[in-house]
Amino acid sequence: MNYRRLGRSGLQVSELSIGSWVTYGNQVDRRAARESLAAARDAGVNFFDNAEVYAGGKSEEIMGHALKELAWPRISYVVSTKFYWGLHEAPNQYHTLNRKYLLHAIDASLHRLQLDYVDLVFCHRPDPNTPIEETVWAMSDMIARGKALYWGTSEWSADEIRAAYEIAERHHLHKPVMEQPQYNLFCRKRVEQQYMRLYEDIGLGLTTWSPLASGLLTGKYRDGVPADSRAQLQGYDWLRTQLTDAGKNNIVGQLGQIADELGCTVGQLAIAWILKNPNVSTVITGASRIEQIHENMKAQEVAVKITPEIKLKIEEVVGDAYQ
Amino acid sequence: MNYRRLGRSGLQVSELSIGSWVTYGNQVDRRAARESLAAARDAGVNFFDNAEVYAGGKSEEIMGHALKELAWPRISYVVSTKFYWGLHEAPNQYHTLNRKYLLHAIDASLHRLQLDYVDLVFCHRPDPNTPIEETVWAMSDMIARGKALYWGTSEWSADEIRAAYEIAERHHLHKPVMEQPQYNLFCRKRVEQQYMRLYEDIGLGLTTWSPLASGLLTGKYRDGVPADSRAQLQGYDWLRTQLTDAGKNNIVGQLGQIADELGCTVGQLAIAWILKNPNVSTVITGASRIEQIHENMKAQEVAVKITPEIKLKIEEVVGDAYQ
Amino acid sequence: MNYRRLGRSGLQVSELSIGSWVTYGNQVDRRAARESLAAARDAGVNFFDNAEVYAGGKSEEIMGHALKELAWPRISYVVSTKFYWGLHEAPNQYHTLNRKYLLHAIDASLHRLQLDYVDLVFCHRPDPNTPIEETVWAMSDMIARGKALYWGTSEWSADEIRAAYEIAERHHLHKPVMEQPQYNLFCRKRVEQQYMRLYEDIGLGLTTWSPLASGLLTGKYRDGVPADSRAQLQGYDWLRTQLTDAGKNNIVGQLGQIADELGCTVGQLAIAWILKNPNVSTVITGASRIEQIHENMKAQEVAVKITPEIKLKIEEVVGDAYQ
Amino acid sequence: MNYRRLGRSGLQVSELSIGSWVTYGNQVDRRAARESLAAARDAGVNFFDNAEVYAGGKSEEIMGHALKELAWPRISYVVSTKFYWGLHEAPNQYHTLNRKYLLHAIDASLHRLQLDYVDLVFCHRPDPNTPIEETVWAMSDMIARGKALYWGTSEWSADEIRAAYEIAERHHLHKPVMEQPQYNLFCRKRVEQQYMRLYEDIGLGLTTWSPLASGLLTGKYRDGVPADSRAQLQGYDWLRTQLTDAGKNNIVGQLGQIADELGCTVGQLAIAWILKNPNVSTVITGASRIEQIHENMKAQEVAVKITPEIKLKIEEVVGDAYQ
Repeated sequence: MNYRRLGRSGLQVSELSIGSWVTYGNQVDRRAARESLAAARDAGVNFFDNAEVYAGGKSEEIMGHALKELAWPRISYVVSTKFYWGLHEAPNQYHTLNRKYLLHAIDASLHRLQLDYVDLVFCHRPDPNTPIEETVWAMSDMIARGKALYWGTSEWSADEIRAAYEIAERHHLHKPVMEQPQYNLFCRKRVEQQYMRLYEDIGLGLTTWSPLASGLLTGKYRDGVPADSRAQLQGYDWLRTQLTDAGKNNIVGQLGQIADELGCTVGQLAIAWILKNPNVSTVITGASRIEQIHENMKAQEVAVKITPEIKLKIEEVVGDAYQ
Repeated sequence: MNYRRLGRSGLQVSELSIGSWVTYGNQVDRRAARESLAAARDAGVNFFDNAEVYAGGKSEEIMGHALKELAWPRISYVVSTKFYWGLHEAPNQYHTLNRKYLLHAIDASLHRLQLDYVDLVFCHRPDPNTPIEETVWAMSDMIARGKALYWGTSEWSADEIRAAYEIAERHHLHKPVMEQPQYNLFCRKRVEQQYMRLYEDIGLGLTTWSPLASGLLTGKYRDGVPADSRAQLQGYDWLRTQLTDAGKNNIVGQLGQIADELGCTVGQLAIAWILKNPNVSTVITGASRIEQIHENMKAQEVAVKITPEIKLKIEEVVGDAYQ
Repeated sequence: MNYRRLGRSGLQVSELSIGSWVTYGNQVDRRAARESLAAARDAGVNFFDNAEVYAGGKSEEIMGHALKELAWPRISYVVSTKFYWGLHEAPNQYHTLNRKYLLHAIDASLHRLQLDYVDLVFCHRPDPNTPIEETVWAMSDMIARGKALYWGTSEWSADEIRAAYEIAERHHLHKPVMEQPQYNLFCRKRVEQQYMRLYEDIGLGLTTWSPLASGLLTGKYRDGVPADSRAQLQGYDWLRTQLTDAGKNNIVGQLGQIADELGCTVGQLAIAWILKNPNVSTVITGASRIEQIHENMKAQEVAVKITPEIKLKIEEVVGDAYQ
Repeated sequence: MNYRRLGRSGLQVSELSIGSWVTYGNQVDRRAARESLAAARDAGVNFFDNAEVYAGGKSEEIMGHALKELAWPRISYVVSTKFYWGLHEAPNQYHTLNRKYLLHAIDASLHRLQLDYVDLVFCHRPDPNTPIEETVWAMSDMIARGKALYWGTSEWSADEIRAAYEIAERHHLHKPVMEQPQYNLFCRKRVEQQYMRLYEDIGLGLTTWSPLASGLLTGKYRDGVPADSRAQLQGYDWLRTQLTDAGKNNIVGQLGQIADELGCTVGQLAIAWILKNPNVSTVITGASRIEQIHENMKAQEVAVKITPEIKLKIEEVVGDAYQ
């Protein structure tokens, strides 16, 4: 496994990491979670992504339980959580980054994770109804109180990230060091264009999510939605629509040919393509099944084979079919 | 219930809230307090105002006891307290905002409230004998130590509020975010004129008190002071004089006609008029009796009916009979 | 009792207070200490001065024991301690204001005093071998950690005090608010000349010591050193020399005549003269015997009688026989 | 024993101190460690140097155990540790000064040492893969949390030290106060040339290591490597090569003649020469055997005899045979 610095910070994260959106708690039981974590660690993964909102807090509970059983030294792994969505639809409890919510949320999250601190804590979305200064103070206070080591954002605009950085610089608070954007062959503009100046100016690190565009880039939706897909779950109609886009599935087909030439799956090709971006610190991949983990990890070997020419060829296939 | 941001902060407070001046401890027993809180919460109220000096500390004790019995999640409600008057007439124990008093007071208050922290903590009056810088440090320290989330002032001049804000900005301390002024149809100048620049410049939020001008705006003093009024209590002669002012009671009579047209009481009209001011974050209303709470809450529906024309009409009736 | 602000701070101290140099631990037993404290408090005194070095730590122990027995509310009194001299002649343990010593000393002192915090903590002398910045950080840290409320200096030069103030201002630390200088009719230059600009510029408060010039101003050394005087103790030869100065004892004789006219003792006159200086926050007086406390407290009544003419007359008698 | 200020700080350290590279844990058992510490203290040594990496953590364990048994007052001695190398070859656990590692390391180190705090904590080497700002925050946080009193660096470049100092100054954090460089007759450039401006500009103190150039300056390698030398241990081939350098051993022979004239060993002469440098705060000497401690301590008497002429003579013998 290769390790990369989280942006300009000194923290080393494995370039492939695992996350748990919908996964733990909904589809995977405790034992499976523990086995997934262990398999990932065996492959060299040291970063395990999580969030308060994943499975309504259960994702944290299950990961906390698994980590306790696995009993690895705390220094040896990196855990994250994220706050914004909240667990209850009530004022100050959801869709907010205000001080009251954030300081409550970190304590509740650490309780579920059975940890003294998380390594990374993210503002899961921007909150237009809270001043960025209030949020910066609360995030910095989490670090000052020893409840987190580094803080960052997820899906914030470049302007918002820079504002947070400058407020922290001016008031001598802990600055944001990373952002968690969606990044894949169909979603590139934020990472490649909008954030461009931030890499150099503030040393922003990226922990990217959805490398396979919710599975679209695995090719398994080329013939419709399989029965065991989460896109069949109730409340995921929007996902179903997105995954069955004809134009995109056609592109996936063409990418499949390049993958064949490299002797890998289209999913591995898609992940390997992300690894070629030096501004990416780590690619968060899915962790529902152990085989999936083993499969995804092979993207590292594929990345070695992607020459500048092949990279160009992949991007030509996608054309301008990305956001 | 509508919720509003507390000024430019990210905290959401119900636009109607309840307070307890004289109320708890003197006139209302523990059970009544608990029932009042429960009724208010059922109506959507999430902010419960209090102060060290209310009923000499008993108001906090009774609220603390009620909150413990009600056992709501701490994240779901907002509690305040205020310091300045003190509980004992002795140096450093009353009429002060010095460091010694404030750091003592917050601990004693949290003990009475049986809480780990209050959401809002106010300097109950300005103290000309303590430098604003000393007070700002002490208030900011309460927040840094996790004993309060936001701090503000009550009945401070615009100049004093801005001085506190700028000292905190310069020394990178927690800034004041709200002020608790008296505000009603007979008391408008501070809110509407003196603080005007502060809303824009520092994002000041308002938690207003005495919406009914100590009951004058209910109309119940038009024929003298009723026997069950607190204005009959010993030591409240000043209040009795104020409530029986002929000119003002005449105005209340005229407002009653507008209220009749809107199908509401004059008290509801008076509260609704305050709600039309966008700089008001929440109107603190009385909570002696459950019926009073139900009555006051209806002001929200009345506010919807107050067109700009009706607002003008109300203000013309009052004329310049306000401070 | 009159109370004065400690300089520009918001803390109120009784204009007469009691201290314990040599007193507790050496000459006075526990019971006497408790009775002295109680008598002073009955007279309205709210400030009790102490220091690590007084009686080698025993002064703090005895005061701590007495305060515990008296069980007054902690908010109702003000206690000080001071660090510099140390208790052991070894590197980092005496004649220093370095971080190691100061952070050790405050914990040891609070342990002896059986208190959670002292109100005032002083740097007992300047230390040319420690940067003022290091000392300012350590003193400010004591306050930030809740172990003291205000900090100051004792017998520092005006330049050193201002340097400490400006370092704290620049680094946003807690600033020094008071100084404890010797001040009496024979020792005036530091208070009246050297510190002059500091009262206005930084609001410096004064807790003055040795109002009777080690007893010289009581007149009891006009006929030599009495047998029960501490000047008879071994190791106090320097004091004996000072107290038997002929010129000064002659002045004391003349002051005695003014005192006679005002119906008071020369000691009361000397203390009353200090009270006329508005830059003095409190005059620390001796507390060996209860009668001494009662005697000294009467200086307040004498101060009322000192007109500008009498003040001038007193100062003319002293002439330039002062430092 | 003479004591010197640690640079411009107020901390007093004995000009000779003892360290434990390879020593404790590998070659010396617990009893010997305790006896070494006691002998050094009897000689006036108050500073005991250590590091996480020395003997893989065992050096701290053994010193902690010995200190507990000796039960000296904590204020009376100065202990250090250092972080960078780490104990496990894994990401974030070795060769790093990132926040995660440093905050983990200090807790583990204090646990091994059985102490509440260390006096001095060093960044054992510079880490080009962590921003200096991240390291400064973590080191300053250790001090703010009471886990260390002063922090510094070891073998950092002048530019890196100044960068750390200026970042701390700008953000109002605790600044580095000392550096631990190698310094002896064969290794002089860093101390004498590179750091020159830092002594005056930031008051840098020095705790120098390897005064005898790994034993080369004792003269015992003039006839090859003795059987009981650590240079015979496996994995120390590099050391063996260095110690048997013919040119340097020839110089040691000439220094031996000067030593003879002064009636001391060449090792004592080498240490005494270091003591003549006023920018050196303390010379850390070896502590394998009690006799070695007694021997080294005599360097103080030798230093008194080194006139400017003798100093020049020593340096002429060495010529430019130094780094």
